Amino acid sequence: MEQPRPVDSMVYPRHSGIATFMRYPHIPDARGLDVVLVGVPFDTSAGYRVGARLAPRAIRHHSSQVRLHHPVHDVTIHEAIRIADYGDVRTSPFDIARTYDWITEEFERIHSFGCKTIAVGGDHGITYPILRAVAKHHGPVAVVQIDSHTDTHDAQFGSKLTHATPFRRAHEAGLIDPKKVMQLGIRGSLFYPDDLKWSKEHYRMVPMHEIHRRGMDEVVADMRALIGAAPVYLSLDIDGLDPSCAPGTGVPEIGGLSTWQAMQVIQGFVGLRLVGADVVEVSPPCDANDITSIVAAQLLFEIAAVFAVNKAR
Amino acid sequence: MEQPRPVDSMVYPRHSGIATFMRYPHIPDARGLDVVLVGVPFDTSAGYRVGARLAPRAIRHHSSQVRLHHPVHDVTIHEAIRIADYGDVRTSPFDIARTYDWITEEFERIHSFGCKTIAVGGDHGITYPILRAVAKHHGPVAVVQIDSHTDTHDAQFGSKLTHATPFRRAHEAGLIDPKKVMQLGIRGSLFYPDDLKWSKEHYRMVPMHEIHRRGMDEVVADMRALIGAAPVYLSLDIDGLDPSCAPGTGVPEIGGLSTWQAMQVIQGFVGLRLVGADVVEVSPPCDANDITSIVAAQLLFEIAAVFAVNKAR
Amino acid sequence: MEQPRPVDSMVYPRHSGIATFMRYPHIPDARGLDVVLVGVPFDTSAGYRVGARLAPRAIRHHSSQVRLHHPVHDVTIHEAIRIADYGDVRTSPFDIARTYDWITEEFERIHSFGCKTIAVGGDHGITYPILRAVAKHHGPVAVVQIDSHTDTHDAQFGSKLTHATPFRRAHEAGLIDPKKVMQLGIRGSLFYPDDLKWSKEHYRMVPMHEIHRRGMDEVVADMRALIGAAPVYLSLDIDGLDPSCAPGTGVPEIGGLSTWQAMQVIQGFVGLRLVGADVVEVSPPCDANDITSIVAAQLLFEIAAVFAVNKAR
Amino acid sequence: MEQPRPVDSMVYPRHSGIATFMRYPHIPDARGLDVVLVGVPFDTSAGYRVGARLAPRAIRHHSSQVRLHHPVHDVTIHEAIRIADYGDVRTSPFDIARTYDWITEEFERIHSFGCKTIAVGGDHGITYPILRAVAKHHGPVAVVQIDSHTDTHDAQFGSKLTHATPFRRAHEAGLIDPKKVMQLGIRGSLFYPDDLKWSKEHYRMVPMHEIHRRGMDEVVADMRALIGAAPVYLSLDIDGLDPSCAPGTGVPEIGGLSTWQAMQVIQGFVGLRLVGADVVEVSPPCDANDITSIVAAQLLFEIAAVFAVNKAR
Amino acid sequence: MEQPRPVDSMVYPRHSGIATFMRYPHIPDARGLDVVLVGVPFDTSAGYRVGARLAPRAIRHHSSQVRLHHPVHDVTIHEAIRIADYGDVRTSPFDIARTYDWITEEFERIHSFGCKTIAVGGDHGITYPILRAVAKHHGPVAVVQIDSHTDTHDAQFGSKLTHATPFRRAHEAGLIDPKKVMQLGIRGSLFYPDDLKWSKEHYRMVPMHEIHRRGMDEVVADMRALIGAAPVYLSLDIDGLDPSCAPGTGVPEIGGLSTWQAMQVIQGFVGLRLVGADVVEVSPPCDANDITSIVAAQLLFEIAAVFAVNKAR
Amino acid sequence: MEQPRPVDSMVYPRHSGIATFMRYPHIPDARGLDVVLVGVPFDTSAGYRVGARLAPRAIRHHSSQVRLHHPVHDVTIHEAIRIADYGDVRTSPFDIARTYDWITEEFERIHSFGCKTIAVGGDHGITYPILRAVAKHHGPVAVVQIDSHTDTHDAQFGSKLTHATPFRRAHEAGLIDPKKVMQLGIRGSLFYPDDLKWSKEHYRMVPMHEIHRRGMDEVVADMRALIGAAPVYLSLDIDGLDPSCAPGTGVPEIGGLSTWQAMQVIQGFVGLRLVGADVVEVSPPCDANDITSIVAAQLLFEIAAVFAVNKAR
Repeated sequence: MEQPRPVDSMVYPRHSGIATFMRYPHIPDARGLDVVLVGVPFDTSAGYRVGARLAPRAIRHHSSQVRLHHPVHDVTIHEAIRIADYGDVRTSPFDIARTYDWITEEFERIHSFGCKTIAVGGDHGITYPILRAVAKHHGPVAVVQIDSHTDTHDAQFGSKLTHATPFRRAHEAGLIDPKKVMQLGIRGSLFYPDDLKWSKEHYRMVPMHEIHRRGMDEVVADMRALIGAAPVYLSLDIDGLDPSCAPGTGVPEIGGLSTWQAMQVIQGFVGLRLVGADVVEVSPPCDANDITSIVAAQLLFEIAAVFAVNKAR
Repeated sequence: MEQPRPVDSMVYPRHSGIATFMRYPHIPDARGLDVVLVGVPFDTSAGYRVGARLAPRAIRHHSSQVRLHHPVHDVTIHEAIRIADYGDVRTSPFDIARTYDWITEEFERIHSFGCKTIAVGGDHGITYPILRAVAKHHGPVAVVQIDSHTDTHDAQFGSKLTHATPFRRAHEAGLIDPKKVMQLGIRGSLFYPDDLKWSKEHYRMVPMHEIHRRGMDEVVADMRALIGAAPVYLSLDIDGLDPSCAPGTGVPEIGGLSTWQAMQVIQGFVGLRLVGADVVEVSPPCDANDITSIVAAQLLFEIAAVFAVNKAR
Repeated sequence: MEQPRPVDSMVYPRHSGIATFMRYPHIPDARGLDVVLVGVPFDTSAGYRVGARLAPRAIRHHSSQVRLHHPVHDVTIHEAIRIADYGDVRTSPFDIARTYDWITEEFERIHSFGCKTIAVGGDHGITYPILRAVAKHHGPVAVVQIDSHTDTHDAQFGSKLTHATPFRRAHEAGLIDPKKVMQLGIRGSLFYPDDLKWSKEHYRMVPMHEIHRRGMDEVVADMRALIGAAPVYLSLDIDGLDPSCAPGTGVPEIGGLSTWQAMQVIQGFVGLRLVGADVVEVSPPCDANDITSIVAAQLLFEIAAVFAVNKAR
Repeated sequence: MEQPRPVDSMVYPRHSGIATFMRYPHIPDARGLDVVLVGVPFDTSAGYRVGARLAPRAIRHHSSQVRLHHPVHDVTIHEAIRIADYGDVRTSPFDIARTYDWITEEFERIHSFGCKTIAVGGDHGITYPILRAVAKHHGPVAVVQIDSHTDTHDAQFGSKLTHATPFRRAHEAGLIDPKKVMQLGIRGSLFYPDDLKWSKEHYRMVPMHEIHRRGMDEVVADMRALIGAAPVYLSLDIDGLDPSCAPGTGVPEIGGLSTWQAMQVIQGFVGLRLVGADVVEVSPPCDANDITSIVAAQLLFEIAAVFAVNKAR
Repeated sequence: MEQPRPVDSMVYPRHSGIATFMRYPHIPDARGLDVVLVGVPFDTSAGYRVGARLAPRAIRHHSSQVRLHHPVHDVTIHEAIRIADYGDVRTSPFDIARTYDWITEEFERIHSFGCKTIAVGGDHGITYPILRAVAKHHGPVAVVQIDSHTDTHDAQFGSKLTHATPFRRAHEAGLIDPKKVMQLGIRGSLFYPDDLKWSKEHYRMVPMHEIHRRGMDEVVADMRALIGAAPVYLSLDIDGLDPSCAPGTGVPEIGGLSTWQAMQVIQGFVGLRLVGADVVEVSPPCDANDITSIVAAQLLFEIAAVFAVNKAR
Repeated sequence: MEQPRPVDSMVYPRHSGIATFMRYPHIPDARGLDVVLVGVPFDTSAGYRVGARLAPRAIRHHSSQVRLHHPVHDVTIHEAIRIADYGDVRTSPFDIARTYDWITEEFERIHSFGCKTIAVGGDHGITYPILRAVAKHHGPVAVVQIDSHTDTHDAQFGSKLTHATPFRRAHEAGLIDPKKVMQLGIRGSLFYPDDLKWSKEHYRMVPMHEIHRRGMDEVVADMRALIGAAPVYLSLDIDGLDPSCAPGTGVPEIGGLSTWQAMQVIQGFVGLRLVGADVVEVSPPCDANDITSIVAAQLLFEIAAVFAVNKAR
């Protein structure tokens, strides 16, 4: 298979052309590819301020800004790996369960070809059906979750499939290796006193004030030690970042991560066995002139660069 | 029962105080009331650009602008009728069917006391569960629908309960007197060639170009003749208005009604047996600095004034 | 005195340079000038949504768009009259009475040189102190008011000097010839049933529905007949326009004038003895990406063109 | 060749998938196609407020709203004609002349296959290089221009290739049949007294006040009579519409066309020999939450429907 | 008295219902309550960019996001203290002195029942009339002021009651214990060289560069030592935060506090005798899609949690 | 020459008056002045998202917020130096080379009088023609560039004069002392692997991660050692700041400088021989309610203060 090549932004201006993720070609077939970016334009499992269904398009548009070579890793992504924009998964805004099944099917198909996925949500609920697909091919995975909320509720408004429950569902279904789960950046008010209890008991939950006190270098070292050689999934809820960095999300929480700290976490995956990732909860209608979509596009670039440098090493 | 009184905007500035519809008192009990405004903050049955769940709050805020007396009808609404802000219906953003049941229950309770309702959506799907409640007390009702779309599809993405289907569902359930349905302002592109067929066969469908050609006076005269003495429900989808007047909606369609034309339709209800109404599909995230919420608040005032003047006559 | 010349937009792009009204030179001295544009950046007499204090700057910025020659009147404004940007009147956001005095003083000084004024508000309260100055030089004047509200209240929150009272105050002070006042476009809900009574008794109040019914040509003919040869002041509250045309104002009212209708009124002043004018209640923070400031700039151009063509005839 | 089919919005929600014009497939090869939509993301020939380079993407995104069947013409576009999204022309934001050459080359290639074009600008300057290509295949064409400005200046800031000059350049190059040019909606202030002279002498220039006075039905009848059987190009500058309908443009002018009037003009092309069209000067950064891109998408649908119904007849 | 309970956001979605502060019940009577949140929708004492009059409503709306339990203090606020939304104080936008009197009266009434207050401004001027009420019940209080400006001017535009003077007025009136005043985060350009002199002489003024150099832990320790056992009032001007965190304010100043640093200060009040607090100068019209209102809501939660944990200890 | 005095914001409110930089008088003649602020409203050399042509006006408007005295340097700028708003340079949006020539001519004229310049861009391309003028009077200068991009490309889309090439052009022309160039804050993805090579070979390029690791104090000390007694030019691309601090720019890059860090760099120029400066790439259409223009205005104040304190010492 030929190496897919992005549009060259030094020839075609970045505001031109049909928008795909990072100007990679649109290839709706994962055979022969190493990594695909997949849009999941679905936010019906969000319980409050919606809009994340519009994120894949907004991020595609602004990801044209991103260029091709990562200066710290010194890697040109599309040369190190075969990477493409897979397009969007089918969804029904009216039916969570059916959409989750469609998500699982599509991601299973992709992973069945040995291709890895970077999902662009959508709300955080989508991580559960993605993990169903990932675990089918990789077994129970380690998870690093950047987030202000643990998303380990049992139910919300009586529903089991929401953006507050994905890691509880994945846990119950045995998709996760609970010894190797790190939740980074947890903070903010709680519905009930015991909201964090389950996470504390089952996972390595790192509240944001711990990061403020210890510094990110130490925390990343802990993360790398915890994950070790396990296949690992990175789930980045954009509300893990501080609202100053990522205002465009349904439930921002003050006192969060800077973009630099989020980059440190992602760059900490060099050498780890990353098998999948997602960036979720970007909500263009909640945003300030799309700055959060721009930030998300650059974090997706950081993630893609890890896949590339890990392959290149 | 004492006559509920709104906050006096000549004493308390309009930007102050907890926001209720038109500054009427919040009374979550319909007994003794003539008309209540009810928020239905639900948009999960919208299939494209969401946000109408935020409309009741946005409209409450901007409805403070509205004053108390209607100069054309020469009626002070809260003196002619006992009217209040009932609050919002319970909803689950994850469950359309359950939410529709909650809507029906709450509206049944209200109508069971002889109180009439002005619903503030929410997406257009909510009209179906409201009509279930209205028809229970008033029998099959005449309907005047201001809209760019007929909303008489059978299903969308395989779902029967969506904002594209309320009048089909209501029709099937016998909640509507099909001989007395007028759809005003229909226009815009169609998914399939036969999209309008059902409406044309069953209802008096007035496409927008007919209104442009004949003028609104004639059309309103037709409407009054068609409805006659029947109990009638007015459903105003804000996308019936032209995008210049109401940009803040999920699916605006060019070539639509001016606010003046919408006012003409509403004022045409004087003397008719209006038993309920709604204003739906206002979407604050799609709006331009809340102008559509302001317009909607004033249309709600026009509707409330009709209830008042009809009672006062 | 040399004829002041605006910046030539065919030489210096319209987005460049320090922004003055229509790129006319800034001349803070009215001697020898025919007409000046004067900013009145004051909105403390607005009782609800403020922001009009920012209008003079926003309108200056966008008035660069306006060019120099009026094609219908066939007049190049700055050649027909000596016109300039006078700058802004001194104001204190904390003190209405004192600011009104400063306004009167500054406008008296300008009119004392035989120069006429186009004021750019600011809230509508400023028309009262301007009329104090205008009447001093021209005697009680005829007034044409384009507005959705009559602004003839006696007081608001116990205050006599507010944007709801200027024409009452001016009337009491004998600044207006009550037989020659026309209020155009009046509409919208009322605080109390008698809000319009005073206007109806004293003035020619033309409610908006009358304009919708009769058409603007007839109404303008009425206006010209009423004003005759009297010195006349034109006060244009931007909320006289429909919210679709002018969303950026504190209290928009649906069912209003189109920009074309407003232009018809202004062009109807050709041959009348126009001695002063204002455009008020543009509120940039309430606006949608400054479109109302753009509209206001073009209406100011229409007004300036009337001064020019009347002089040129 | 197989009939290209758009994404079915009743299967894939309209906010999902990579955005192409009206969800038609992206086919960068005109062979076998009847009509293509072509993006021209270029605004360097705009002299004031830029941003139109972002319009093709914004319009692609919002054109997902548009459905497939036109109810008035009763035609399903993609069944009547083979139509696709061709993608964007190559541009250099730094070089007007070179970009114009690229535009001409690309449009020549398309028309060389007998395929017609609907260009999505971009500023109005692009019409000149498009007409170079169109005239090569069709000879000098009739032109209907919907616009507030004539765009027949000779130069701007000393440059001959700008958005104020395309029809002058096309005229000089003999690309236009001057007897069959109609300019509709012209209005607004002029740089110099003679700005309209050239247009009046050479073309049928219909100022906006004439349309207000005579009504659009008469004007469209004139247009059809003037064009007759000639091959005709439709150039729709979005600022021909009133700012209430299309605020998102660099130089809006009050007193303009309603969307309904623009639709009347476009629908007036049924039976005419339409060989090309464009919609230009949509500027997302000047817009109010993308409403102008939505309006433009629907006008593009109207234009595409004319191609379809003309073929289908 | 029964313990007031907020709406349960796990039953009623957070976007639903009439908006009160943190969904606490609206109780306009302080008897039996420990703490009330009080809106003060007044910004006439702001001298530049206004809009803070709209903050109580915007913050009420977005405070629905906040949940009930504080994870660091491990306290459920509404169980530890009886807390409610008191509603808004009466104001007149036209009269600063009279409004200040109304504020003092209302806050005196509240404090007379032993209830403490968290005021939601409004501009910073309101702190003076609040302190008049607080000092009446608690004697001269210690003050911690988070702010970029000292607000200790003597007058502005000749007026003594403005948002630049509250602490000077309070000082003169003996409402403050000057030995126990700490001003945190002071920075930005000065009108005149001596602007800071008064503060430096009378208070412990901590400029922002000192915080950058020493770190917040040390500064908070200083603060706790300074305040000791005195009754203390916390006044948080949102412009104490960096513009990246709180863009929505009239006069943002670069180089300011992060939200995390503000949280550190607030959490430093555990064990202190907090008798009142305010959050002021949030200006929705100056904001970027309401992010500053969201931040303010979460800071109000932090303050309420201090009242709760101090009571609970 | 009399000392030019700014408008006193304690007399004339900051939202009033014709907007000039920091309310300094508009003096289009540099004779006798020490420093002028010069607008360069030009963005045609920007290759992606434009809008910087609107920055001089937006920054003028918001710079009214800035006061006159710098508390850290303890200097009142307009008393220490004669400083004014020079107005804008002539530009043609259609012609980069010609505009660059105009820029050079105008800046030469200014520097020929011994006056120094603070340019307000405009895109970064303008630094090259400014350096042509500066170097003519001061010889090859040292340069400190705060930026996320090195802007040392050789060409873009085949053009040599773009915002990606100014320092390459200046270098080739011998305008810069290459031993004394420091680039601060470089980061972000690269078009090609060697994008940074040239900078690394020729300049002291300090990538952002180095600043994160070493701290700004050390880096500023390096800078001062490198520059020494050389005449130095400061070029501040606003995208050197983190997107949280400066979202309003064409190509924001995550992980950047805080405003505090940018202030540290600028304050590090005390005692250095600063001969010119610019702030570029602020793009109001990309901004979030003008916060970046506010930030830029305050950074311009910091720069002006350095000129003042250096003169005053």
